[in-house]
Amino acid sequence: MVNWNSPSSNLTSKCRQAFKQMNNDPLKQRISHYQQRIEKALDQWLPSPLTHPTRLHEAMRYAVLNGGKRIRPILTYATGEALNIPLENLDGIASAVEIIHSYSLVHDDLPAMDDDDLRRGVATCHTAFDEATAILAGDALQALSFYVITHDQKLAVDHSVRLQIIEKLALACGSRGMAGGQAIDLSSVGQTLNVMQLEDMHIHKTGALIRASISLAALAAPNPDANELVSLDHFGKCIGLAFQIHDDILDEISDTETLGKTHGTDRAKNKPTYPSIVGLQVSKQRTQDLYQEAIESLQSLGSRNTEYLHYIAELIVKRNH
Amino acid sequence: MVNWNSPSSNLTSKCRQAFKQMNNDPLKQRISHYQQRIEKALDQWLPSPLTHPTRLHEAMRYAVLNGGKRIRPILTYATGEALNIPLENLDGIASAVEIIHSYSLVHDDLPAMDDDDLRRGVATCHTAFDEATAILAGDALQALSFYVITHDQKLAVDHSVRLQIIEKLALACGSRGMAGGQAIDLSSVGQTLNVMQLEDMHIHKTGALIRASISLAALAAPNPDANELVSLDHFGKCIGLAFQIHDDILDEISDTETLGKTHGTDRAKNKPTYPSIVGLQVSKQRTQDLYQEAIESLQSLGSRNTEYLHYIAELIVKRNH
Repeated sequence: MVNWNSPSSNLTSKCRQAFKQMNNDPLKQRISHYQQRIEKALDQWLPSPLTHPTRLHEAMRYAVLNGGKRIRPILTYATGEALNIPLENLDGIASAVEIIHSYSLVHDDLPAMDDDDLRRGVATCHTAFDEATAILAGDALQALSFYVITHDQKLAVDHSVRLQIIEKLALACGSRGMAGGQAIDLSSVGQTLNVMQLEDMHIHKTGALIRASISLAALAAPNPDANELVSLDHFGKCIGLAFQIHDDILDEISDTETLGKTHGTDRAKNKPTYPSIVGLQVSKQRTQDLYQEAIESLQSLGSRNTEYLHYIAELIVKRNH
Repeated sequence: MVNWNSPSSNLTSKCRQAFKQMNNDPLKQRISHYQQRIEKALDQWLPSPLTHPTRLHEAMRYAVLNGGKRIRPILTYATGEALNIPLENLDGIASAVEIIHSYSLVHDDLPAMDDDDLRRGVATCHTAFDEATAILAGDALQALSFYVITHDQKLAVDHSVRLQIIEKLALACGSRGMAGGQAIDLSSVGQTLNVMQLEDMHIHKTGALIRASISLAALAAPNPDANELVSLDHFGKCIGLAFQIHDDILDEISDTETLGKTHGTDRAKNKPTYPSIVGLQVSKQRTQDLYQEAIESLQSLGSRNTEYLHYIAELIVKRNH
């Protein structure tokens, strides 16, 4: 089980504190259960460090089994609970999404990209191993995520749905999804973006995979209702964007209040952020509006059990440090 | 149409000359037809350079539409002709395999990997663009290749077969396939390998995708015969390994005969090669044995039209410069 108190990355360090604050919330136990599931599933899908080529396999495991908060798998499982999908059916989708996320962090951390030596308080993959191994580990992890979806026997869907899941995953992490967002992000350093351009970047870089973590699970529902799928996808779109805007806000607050701890923040890297464009108050209002829009989307699921999704949305966007 | 006379990479420069020599061979026209098909298919699958994010899309197109010889798509189409599969049904598979191959070259060329500035006589992707863009272009190309298989409407196979194709492609380029082979290759620099270890590296790094370019096409046959699939896969395994051993031989000959032109050869990079381990004559015999084994595999396809596969095998392993 992941230690919530472990040092964490810039994207999740604030989340950790929110989780700590909510110790008394009974829903936390369920989130913890999701988290234990995904750790076990990831461990099983990743190649053994004892098998050839051992160093590459070690690097792949290092990159994934690193104490991450597993926000995306948690969203996958919570979507499953809303749609009465047995959680075991979703282990593969949750793993695939998290493996894609992990590979993206390995490549983002490379010297030619964000050049980060530390992630979650420990050495980044290229620092612990070497750059070439990190590049290849990322590449092999991406291939693994697609293999997982083709091979997962517990995913109880028709072949056509399995293909849809692979197609959506490929789109979410391709040039018009996550990889495209990272390209826009890198090209935005030192640039002046307007709000529309910044949201476009966020929707691609972070939003696409968060959205996929929900919509892919929804595809695995035994009798999917088209309207429910649209509502859940809209929920994912809203919280994906809210997640990143709120992260921008926290970067700004952290930057202001904890001078000397700016290493790794977007501001320090001269990247445009939501508050730097529209100010803190408008940013907060935008996050609140997106959260509200997300929750309203859930309402159209009627009597479905959406409390876990609701809880995670709240956790993501209402954390105040 | 690709100009066979264009400068080419170390893996394909010798092939170009073999192609030139065989100008009078009537089979060459068919290979040229395959080559025209794949250029058109790749152009259609790649994102438009006019669409957002334009720079990333430009880099992806630059990496793929670069005058490559398209050995792997040629093998895909030739397998199709042997199994009476309409070529148009194979455009997607041929594209996916070549897109994977192209992304692997982009990442292999990076400074942290083989550190090559030139490929086929022009600037490598990270030199023409920048390292970050090259990493992301490779990442996005891998995602694109899986998208192609899910989305290709001309691929006339059941959903279950389409899933098998994706699974095999993911395995071929993952940690136990191409990416694993590249990891072994990098770790072998300056090391002493035995023949078994070297063949293991070759089978992974180059062999896995060459083999897949044949076996994936075979899966698209309307009424696949299990024995034929096994024979074709064995053909692919043999010529994949022969391709790389022969390449080692050509590197050695080139290195010996054309002193001063060693830049980019395995010897110059202190990488173990087949001739450096067992000598030139044993290497040549091994290539010849593998070629023979490959051709014998084709014989079990009886009256099938295997002349194109035979021709390509000959082209790959009998070129003498």
